[in-house]
Amino acid sequence: MYAALFQQMQKQLGQLDHWLEVAAQHATAKSFDPNLYLSFRLAPDQFAFARQVQVTCDTAKLAAARLTGQEAPKHADAEQTLDELRTRVRAVTEYLGGVTPAALADAATRVITQPRWEGKTMTGADYFVEHAVPNFYFHLGHAYAILRHNGVPLGKRDYLGALSFQPAKAE
Amino acid sequence: MYAALFQQMQKQLGQLDHWLEVAAQHATAKSFDPNLYLSFRLAPDQFAFARQVQVTCDTAKLAAARLTGQEAPKHADAEQTLDELRTRVRAVTEYLGGVTPAALADAATRVITQPRWEGKTMTGADYFVEHAVPNFYFHLGHAYAILRHNGVPLGKRDYLGALSFQPAKAE
Repeated sequence: MYAALFQQMQKQLGQLDHWLEVAAQHATAKSFDPNLYLSFRLAPDQFAFARQVQVTCDTAKLAAARLTGQEAPKHADAEQTLDELRTRVRAVTEYLGGVTPAALADAATRVITQPRWEGKTMTGADYFVEHAVPNFYFHLGHAYAILRHNGVPLGKRDYLGALSFQPAKAE
Repeated sequence: MYAALFQQMQKQLGQLDHWLEVAAQHATAKSFDPNLYLSFRLAPDQFAFARQVQVTCDTAKLAAARLTGQEAPKHADAEQTLDELRTRVRAVTEYLGGVTPAALADAATRVITQPRWEGKTMTGADYFVEHAVPNFYFHLGHAYAILRHNGVPLGKRDYLGALSFQPAKAE
């Protein structure tokens, strides 16, 4: 299940890459600078769009690294354009593609911590279910919501992507 | 893992119930009708707040019913007030509380369908990971975003709730 949920995060990052492409096309069609999106936000004390995308990426990347005992690749949070955000999203998509079920074998029982927890720890299972998955979808959903709020033409299919329907049975 | 993810959905619905309480308090403090929130939305062609809450509830409820082979309890989508929405949220929270790991034993291999799929099916595993979990967090996150966009004082701790930190070791 860990591997399936990471595979789904990878898929959702592919959808996010698609939203960024649609946003750029929308800006071009409306003759405004597509990089304006990076500073849009839904509330003055919420993260702006660029940060929502960065944190979505980091949440997936750090969860994969922590649950497999790897060092996560570093990203500088220096993106200034939609294209640079797409490069970040694709880098993390590729990183998640290398996370194997075997590498996740001990995920549930690993001891997870991060600096802001000031020495406190969670089990890998609790961290993934209570922290990583809800945070990933929080920032992903806020990125989507900021684009929709600003007129980018996206719908639920752009959010979910293609579903794995079973082949129809012969009659 | 199915049980843990449903337990997390149950927890998140408890957080949603808390946000509704904070929204009502905020409206009272600002002297406006708290039920105004129900019609707020982030884009004209997105669901309004009340519908976001209803769909969050339904996504969790229907996933639990489908993956355990039960009939889901019915709710009429007739809520007109924040209090009625809270009653809906609590009913589904209670329903999820009755979902046992034993009842989920065959979840991964169940054949799942719904009317809008026009006869197509998914495995329980694919449905849960690709459809139920992303949709649950989509509508939950949009409900949160609508409240934040409209000034309700919430933060990430209100979103995630308490985390299961491990007891500190004696030195």
